[in-house]
Amino acid sequence: MKIIVDCYGGDHCPVEAVAGAVAALEKLPELSVVLTGDEKEISALLQGHKYDRGRLEVVNASEVITNSDPPAKAVMRKKDSSTVVGLNLLKEGGADGMVSSANTGALLVGGSIILGLSEGVTRAALCPVLPNAKGTYTILADGGANIDCRPEQMVEFAVMGSVYMREMFNITSPSTGLLNNGAEAEKGNEQTKAAYKLLTETKGINFVGNIECRDLLTGAVDVIVADGFNGNIGIKASEGMGSVLFGLIKEGIMQGGLRAKMGYLLLKPVLKKVKNKMSSDDVGGAVFLGMKKVLVKTHGSGKAQAFMNAIIKAHGMAKSGVPAKIEDGLRFR
Amino acid sequence: MKIIVDCYGGDHCPVEAVAGAVAALEKLPELSVVLTGDEKEISALLQGHKYDRGRLEVVNASEVITNSDPPAKAVMRKKDSSTVVGLNLLKEGGADGMVSSANTGALLVGGSIILGLSEGVTRAALCPVLPNAKGTYTILADGGANIDCRPEQMVEFAVMGSVYMREMFNITSPSTGLLNNGAEAEKGNEQTKAAYKLLTETKGINFVGNIECRDLLTGAVDVIVADGFNGNIGIKASEGMGSVLFGLIKEGIMQGGLRAKMGYLLLKPVLKKVKNKMSSDDVGGAVFLGMKKVLVKTHGSGKAQAFMNAIIKAHGMAKSGVPAKIEDGLRFR
Repeated sequence: MKIIVDCYGGDHCPVEAVAGAVAALEKLPELSVVLTGDEKEISALLQGHKYDRGRLEVVNASEVITNSDPPAKAVMRKKDSSTVVGLNLLKEGGADGMVSSANTGALLVGGSIILGLSEGVTRAALCPVLPNAKGTYTILADGGANIDCRPEQMVEFAVMGSVYMREMFNITSPSTGLLNNGAEAEKGNEQTKAAYKLLTETKGINFVGNIECRDLLTGAVDVIVADGFNGNIGIKASEGMGSVLFGLIKEGIMQGGLRAKMGYLLLKPVLKKVKNKMSSDDVGGAVFLGMKKVLVKTHGSGKAQAFMNAIIKAHGMAKSGVPAKIEDGLRFR
Repeated sequence: MKIIVDCYGGDHCPVEAVAGAVAALEKLPELSVVLTGDEKEISALLQGHKYDRGRLEVVNASEVITNSDPPAKAVMRKKDSSTVVGLNLLKEGGADGMVSSANTGALLVGGSIILGLSEGVTRAALCPVLPNAKGTYTILADGGANIDCRPEQMVEFAVMGSVYMREMFNITSPSTGLLNNGAEAEKGNEQTKAAYKLLTETKGINFVGNIECRDLLTGAVDVIVADGFNGNIGIKASEGMGSVLFGLIKEGIMQGGLRAKMGYLLLKPVLKKVKNKMSSDDVGGAVFLGMKKVLVKTHGSGKAQAFMNAIIKAHGMAKSGVPAKIEDGLRFR
């Protein structure tokens, strides 16, 4: 399997993207990578790494799509950007998947237009794969790409998320919940009530009913279906609470004198493990579902580990043929 | 000021409600309380407490509204419940405010019908007053009572929340943000885009634009305006993250051997302080805004401290005349 790594657009690019690609090559012997971006700069960076030269190539691209670029315009105008060059290469069959930390909107627009949407898909979804308290993962479909969704689209999200969890985590019948303002069947706003009804009638998914956002990270279900607006609220509230809590703990330690500092030194491995467990670096980013080819988005602030994990994820998705299986899932729903 | 305490309906009622009322009497010399519920049971509980008898009375009520009761039916049929008896007493001028841990829906319906809505208010809002990382508070209007809100209603929430923060926390011009899926002005779904426009045109509020749910607990603004569906998602996601993180830390300590256990013992005061700071017990519950009289909801699982804080809050709201000032605010917007 060959995965394209867009080496520009993220906060720590290209340094961390290149390091992540090299680390992924080390991890997966059957992997090869194509790095897109400024060939000179990338080559210079590669000189600091040891890697199998036969499995790495660089394709030059002279432009960069930044986070302040308007997505559609950037895709149309920056034809020689590391992102667009990568997407075109992927479309033409030059690789099996792609990883990028660039502008999410540009990836959504660019991926939908250049790669195309799978048969039966109205809109591609951006789905974070969240670590949960059980030590497994939950996919959130959609995590922020689509707002004001029609209930029919939310059924597509449910099917796509279920296919992903089945193929990537070997879960025969992934449990699927609808993000709602209460667990009871009659709860919801107009949109979620309509989606609830459609989801109960959808074949090929294991719909278990409504779930509250309290269960976003508990592992109560494998797939959480949401309008991207609500998915975004839930994810960001969780991130906010996480950073507030760790911030307050840190502040408490600083002000807590010797006792607290000693306690921290002893408890550091535990706190670090918890932080890592719930961090996005470990997860390797969100996946776009519904496009004809595999596209994985790494966090804009992602470092080498995040890139490596995203590449491994893209490799797994390509190997399992997730895009084709999504088409199957939507055909037989 | 006289505050009614509905002693039934919560998980730890009536024991903790009675204890909370006694604790509040101790804190506030100018407070008197009326306890509603089973007179015999309440009197028996009071024998275990010391308090100023001249400032406490009990009004008998033979029924209890439970969490499984359908709200509207419960209010209509359980006329002799501790909740309805309390609301009627409040309406008739027998007190200045009321605190209850009963069924939220019943309080919303009962409060709106029995107490009535303030002039200019379409729907009452249920507003959690959240502790934030700055050590101050942020009010979320609405936190879950109203879904599928019209943008005009969200303007009412903004005005009501601003009046509350001004009166209760002495903030001259409370900063007000709209909960949205991005900070930029053009972000949002149809509803929030329309609300954004109206909020910029509203007099008497200090609208600072969109805020992301990451800032729910950072203290970035004093008032967060939201459709109750999204408010609910944000609050529950935060609660979920909080309990997942503390759960994982606990698990890590259990599995971390002697070193982790010693670290925990030393760091316990810090962790406990952080937990208390962000807990709902300390906050004393959510306030209903938009009703003609003061009504405060304590968490169903609230203990004595939560009741005490809710009573102190209701007392403060009554003293400041929050309901009348909300009418003023809505008149001059």
